[in-house]
Amino acid sequence: MLGHLARRLGSLRGQQISNALKGISPNQLLSKETHRHLQSSLETISPISMTLWPFSSQSRDFSQPNSSWSPEMHKVYDHYTALCDTDTENGEEKKRGPWRKLPSYNRSIKYATAGIYLSKLIQAKARLFTRNFKEPGTAFEYVVFVNKEEKRCVCVFQAGHLLEGAPGHVHGGAIATIIDTVTGTLASFLSGPIMTANLNIDYRSPMPLGSVVLIHSALDRIERKKTYITCKVTSTDESKLYTEATALFVSIGVGHLFGSQN
Amino acid sequence: MLGHLARRLGSLRGQQISNALKGISPNQLLSKETHRHLQSSLETISPISMTLWPFSSQSRDFSQPNSSWSPEMHKVYDHYTALCDTDTENGEEKKRGPWRKLPSYNRSIKYATAGIYLSKLIQAKARLFTRNFKEPGTAFEYVVFVNKEEKRCVCVFQAGHLLEGAPGHVHGGAIATIIDTVTGTLASFLSGPIMTANLNIDYRSPMPLGSVVLIHSALDRIERKKTYITCKVTSTDESKLYTEATALFVSIGVGHLFGSQN
Repeated sequence: MLGHLARRLGSLRGQQISNALKGISPNQLLSKETHRHLQSSLETISPISMTLWPFSSQSRDFSQPNSSWSPEMHKVYDHYTALCDTDTENGEEKKRGPWRKLPSYNRSIKYATAGIYLSKLIQAKARLFTRNFKEPGTAFEYVVFVNKEEKRCVCVFQAGHLLEGAPGHVHGGAIATIIDTVTGTLASFLSGPIMTANLNIDYRSPMPLGSVVLIHSALDRIERKKTYITCKVTSTDESKLYTEATALFVSIGVGHLFGSQN
Repeated sequence: MLGHLARRLGSLRGQQISNALKGISPNQLLSKETHRHLQSSLETISPISMTLWPFSSQSRDFSQPNSSWSPEMHKVYDHYTALCDTDTENGEEKKRGPWRKLPSYNRSIKYATAGIYLSKLIQAKARLFTRNFKEPGTAFEYVVFVNKEEKRCVCVFQAGHLLEGAPGHVHGGAIATIIDTVTGTLASFLSGPIMTANLNIDYRSPMPLGSVVLIHSALDRIERKKTYITCKVTSTDESKLYTEATALFVSIGVGHLFGSQN
């Protein structure tokens, strides 16, 4: 689908790529048809890293239920899955609700074929921070559901035992990580390729290891290149508030990661 | 060393422990002698989780140099090590400088023996989020040096390939995690047991995977139970600014993690 971009980059090396990409937005870099295709992909593929690099991946979807999930995790998953938008039943599409479940991978660029420099930069062994554990349930178990019409999303998150901070409780950095991930997913869903510019997090109550919590993210406003997201972490019945946050994301061109300021 | 506290807790279960600890500060819970011992331990044992639970651990110190460290990491480590306060040479202490290297473990409560409820709560398999990888160099490699007189610390941090966010770059959540860890280490060094109340992080420039950076943390002010820390993440020559942050920590009693608001 994006082979022409891969080929275009594949013929360059090092500083050439950096120069080639400087100041170029994805809109300028891609053909209109490819761009429409990419835009449509961005609406179905959500994690931040997926939207920053336009190569597809056929990796395992980490947001599928697995044996480490607690009954509480399953219950919330089933609740939102039942509200998801379309389902194919006997060959017919069946409208159900305003939510959509987003897939989640552990890399975005597995099949990139853009030359030695990119291979080195991209690092074959690199893995998405929130999906870098082989054993299910040990760290981040989460699924993001997005509601396009209401410009918000909900993530159900089960915090594994390798995320410890204070004894028996989830590390503040792990909570920041899932907040960055979920707010970034919403921001990229709404605004395309983005990077985190600010996270402001108020920790209201310590979260025990093993907890299943909801991360509610909603669009506050978009001002030119800036997308402002609000976020709240609660118990699954929403009676207990663990964390509140705001996040600011800035829209970027593909060249940004190669040193361009655009 | 803290056997009497372990024994006292060991004779209780569940809600009894929760009630017993409610509103009790470590000062009230411990004998004067034990408290002096603990205070002295707090000065040599730094990570947040180490200061929140008063049991000693004989685990491996993860902040020792290993084969995954780059020459840049070694260079900064050697620089600050040479400025560390005392060194024993031929049986004599030799004063060198105002810095002190802090050890770093992957659990704080390995040897806790305080009954079934605590064992369950504490989770034997739990690991500190920043030290939960077996293979050196894959995730967080870091060492914290503290300068007591100047109320500040410096952390040298090498970001491994499992910390990816945007392709080839460190996840915003991983940066938040090391900032929480380093600012929390300084806050607990200065104020005793604390928990993170706020993190406000400005991401100025994307950080490539594999980077070695410095995290500079300094005390802003202490107001009653609140300890305010400032933080800056730079390249090792300090010419490039990656991230700026402020952090607020609140002093807590041991009972806080069991549900007390004190």
